[in-house]
Amino acid sequence: MEIGLEAKDIDMFIETKIRSIVKSISWRILATLTTVSLVFIFFHRIDIALELGGVEIVAKMFIYYFHERAWDKIKFGKVAISPFVVWLTGLPKSGKTTIGNNLFRLLQKEGIKVQRLDSKEVRALFPETGFTREARDEHIKRIGYLTSILEQNGVSSVASFVSPYKESRDFVRKNTKNFVEVYVKASVETCIKRDKEGMYERALKGEIINFTGVSDVYEEPTEAEIVVDTEKLTPDEAAQKIYKYLKKKFLNVRRL
Amino acid sequence: MEIGLEAKDIDMFIETKIRSIVKSISWRILATLTTVSLVFIFFHRIDIALELGGVEIVAKMFIYYFHERAWDKIKFGKVAISPFVVWLTGLPKSGKTTIGNNLFRLLQKEGIKVQRLDSKEVRALFPETGFTREARDEHIKRIGYLTSILEQNGVSSVASFVSPYKESRDFVRKNTKNFVEVYVKASVETCIKRDKEGMYERALKGEIINFTGVSDVYEEPTEAEIVVDTEKLTPDEAAQKIYKYLKKKFLNVRRL
Repeated sequence: MEIGLEAKDIDMFIETKIRSIVKSISWRILATLTTVSLVFIFFHRIDIALELGGVEIVAKMFIYYFHERAWDKIKFGKVAISPFVVWLTGLPKSGKTTIGNNLFRLLQKEGIKVQRLDSKEVRALFPETGFTREARDEHIKRIGYLTSILEQNGVSSVASFVSPYKESRDFVRKNTKNFVEVYVKASVETCIKRDKEGMYERALKGEIINFTGVSDVYEEPTEAEIVVDTEKLTPDEAAQKIYKYLKKKFLNVRRL
Repeated sequence: MEIGLEAKDIDMFIETKIRSIVKSISWRILATLTTVSLVFIFFHRIDIALELGGVEIVAKMFIYYFHERAWDKIKFGKVAISPFVVWLTGLPKSGKTTIGNNLFRLLQKEGIKVQRLDSKEVRALFPETGFTREARDEHIKRIGYLTSILEQNGVSSVASFVSPYKESRDFVRKNTKNFVEVYVKASVETCIKRDKEGMYERALKGEIINFTGVSDVYEEPTEAEIVVDTEKLTPDEAAQKIYKYLKKKFLNVRRL
């Protein structure tokens, strides 16, 4: 099931407590043996070296503990990531897929767990049941459900769907925690110009029914978190714009 | 969207490299200051104490590095978890939901990232579109798609659905990596006895159409990884049986 750009198999690892304990002990023994050796080399007194080693073992354990606790309070260099759902909506050929792919790569590079969901790829395995308003609404709600479950499990998503109806987009918004609606804006005229597959043409001829922008309504978002005008921005610039917003809002890089 | 038993918000944390570097340096300084102080206390020679501290800083860095590399080779106390999909199938009232819930809790306690999916809870937000064989097949395939995406993102699932048709169960098997089909077995007679809501009764009267076990076929699994006979096992025992299988197969506890 190869959905998304690069589906990877992730193995989780758990380090048991006993491993951490044994590793800590082995390090402490090694470290103290080093100190004892150094003291012996410098002073040629094995009795005092061993005595010092005994004191060091206890002292370092305490100091290490307080060092850990102190660092726990220090926010420097920590990044908290709240999982989010980026929802790209717009007319067919407005540029959603390309922008979504670019954004997905930027997020992956940052080490963020993210799932790509695009209408074309999803369709094969997650069939839409029809092209009526109701059927399309339901399809979007199902995808929304999926993104919500991913979000709950710490996985963000980048979804790109025409999703023409405000109601179904708002359904996803309501049922996710960090919803980012991105209106990928381009006029119908521009979209027609970009359409090398001739979908608009066929829709205009009546060969495709309920085609958004031609024979079905596209309800423009009125409260989108981000609007990217693809008549002015390249797909790269658009992805960067969204990325910056996400970084500011959901990637809480802490400084001193 | 409260699906599953306890939906938690998971924040991911990333520790930046610069944090690790600064923390390592701060520890080394503190540790060496301790050694220098100890040596001074024992020998009253600040010059040699400082010199020893200088040697220690370099020596300990190398030793620490080799200690890390050696532990990287040691498997002791490491647990590798491969995400999996547990699929409970069986007649209505056979005990799928209870067993699924018990299993889910066992897995959560173990620290495994897992999503619970049960037909009843899913239905509210992930509507089935009908009760024909085709519609039911499609519904199961959609759930299967969801579990597959979760698996790809390192999240296991425990799904409990009547899922009466072999074909759709095999579809999920084919599209997931670690599929565990669990046949929750009970005779129709037993299920009728357990049915306090009177679903079977209504189905027998013809008030519910296409009811599995009465007016629709249940295709028994022929290659289920696990069979739990709920006429012989309690839900707790059944969950334990599945849990043991998962532990053996997907929780690779490594020993020396």
